[in-house]
Amino acid sequence: MFKKVTIIGVGLIGGSIGMALKREELAKLVCGVGRRRSSINKALRAGAIDTGTLRLETGIKGADLIIIATPVSTIKQYLLKIARTHETPCIITDAGSTKKDIVSLAQNALPAGLKFVGAHPLAGSEKRGPEHSCAGLFKNSITILTKTSKTDASSLKKVRRMWEAVGAKCRIMAPAEHDKIVAAISHLPHIVACTLVNSAEGASLGFAAGGFKDTTRIASSDPAMWRDIILTNRKSILSALKKFERSLRKMTAPDSDRLLAELKKAKRKRDEIN
Amino acid sequence: MFKKVTIIGVGLIGGSIGMALKREELAKLVCGVGRRRSSINKALRAGAIDTGTLRLETGIKGADLIIIATPVSTIKQYLLKIARTHETPCIITDAGSTKKDIVSLAQNALPAGLKFVGAHPLAGSEKRGPEHSCAGLFKNSITILTKTSKTDASSLKKVRRMWEAVGAKCRIMAPAEHDKIVAAISHLPHIVACTLVNSAEGASLGFAAGGFKDTTRIASSDPAMWRDIILTNRKSILSALKKFERSLRKMTAPDSDRLLAELKKAKRKRDEIN
Repeated sequence: MFKKVTIIGVGLIGGSIGMALKREELAKLVCGVGRRRSSINKALRAGAIDTGTLRLETGIKGADLIIIATPVSTIKQYLLKIARTHETPCIITDAGSTKKDIVSLAQNALPAGLKFVGAHPLAGSEKRGPEHSCAGLFKNSITILTKTSKTDASSLKKVRRMWEAVGAKCRIMAPAEHDKIVAAISHLPHIVACTLVNSAEGASLGFAAGGFKDTTRIASSDPAMWRDIILTNRKSILSALKKFERSLRKMTAPDSDRLLAELKKAKRKRDEIN
Repeated sequence: MFKKVTIIGVGLIGGSIGMALKREELAKLVCGVGRRRSSINKALRAGAIDTGTLRLETGIKGADLIIIATPVSTIKQYLLKIARTHETPCIITDAGSTKKDIVSLAQNALPAGLKFVGAHPLAGSEKRGPEHSCAGLFKNSITILTKTSKTDASSLKKVRRMWEAVGAKCRIMAPAEHDKIVAAISHLPHIVACTLVNSAEGASLGFAAGGFKDTTRIASSDPAMWRDIILTNRKSILSALKKFERSLRKMTAPDSDRLLAELKKAKRKRDEIN
């Protein structure tokens, strides 16, 4: 499907994409670009990439697909660097958790030959680093791809086929719609999980059982990555937060019938997800 | 350890206690009292009880230990019934998720020969019913036992030995302290999980991945049971909610450094739980 795929950022997501591409034989060469030699070495040992480099220019030379799998703010920095230095036509995609910011920057900054398709695989873990990569990470997961009036149709198709080949189902939507959805099902839950941990006293945490552990598991995720996500999707998160607070007031009002109705509604909606 | 243990309420918790008592041979006879013949039959089939009845008086006759393992409001009803009709001295304990309400009612209502020890096993699941019972449910879990100036020391010791024999570690504290702890690590997280589900639009829920599923798993729990819990521990929950809201404001302020500090604090505290 591709001659050379370059993955910038060989952490959990980048490493897993590399492994999956290699397992499905979707690229003749998978090249990793990292900022630390140790990450590149780990990714090489894990079999996530065929070759690796710390130099962006070397890494993306000759690539027909560039995948930027770094935290959101770094994705933007890489897009700007690539826009300044890279001329060979190719497809660029990403794996960032917010899309409006990134897609709009890509559309403004990249020259015509560099076709950007925003992507967000809804898969991951609270673990990080290429040593936790796994080729099956995207199996039965959803990857959201963004489409705007400026999206190149054939590039979108290729990126879609790539994600489907590694096991993901693709949904295509506008960047703003993506950001609204993930604010409700990922970003706000993350904030809430962290807040539950932070607001509980240390002495109480010693009594944490299965329920608390599950509810707050994601609070163990990488802080810097999440700061970026929260800051770049602030508007959608605040709007999801408003709905959350309205709903919270219904559950904490001294009204037994209303409380039961809310608990029943939550059970019904949650059971449907399984 | 006991001649006859009667478990009132043969759901997940009651059934699991029965199984564990039988496995550890802590009682010559384990009798279940239920409100539906079908639950009794399920508990018998699961091997959770030796004998079962729908009649409270028959069930508790000759018991040296009575364990009330029903939702909180029903525990109170059973305590009042037992106080009115039962005269043979015995130990009574429970498995209710709140303690102040229950312990204070028991101390006021029960005659001198009936010694009450409040208990709350911090174990469970979003599943319900004796068919999900398991003798190992309490292994490595914590059971909180309550102690007040009116608690009978030798009864507390016996109940403690029973819980330790089925694999739980016991912590002894005042009912109010218990209620404060579980408000922070169980009741508020439950409310928050339900609120995350209720405030998310149906269309967004289709994109729920591992993080959302974990964070909201407990929203699938029994609504009526949780209404009771929330209503009987309202004061402690509202106080935990205040701390939650203060902490939430720190995380949603437009301050990158503060946000990062909060995310790091949450990760550090959460990592310590594992």
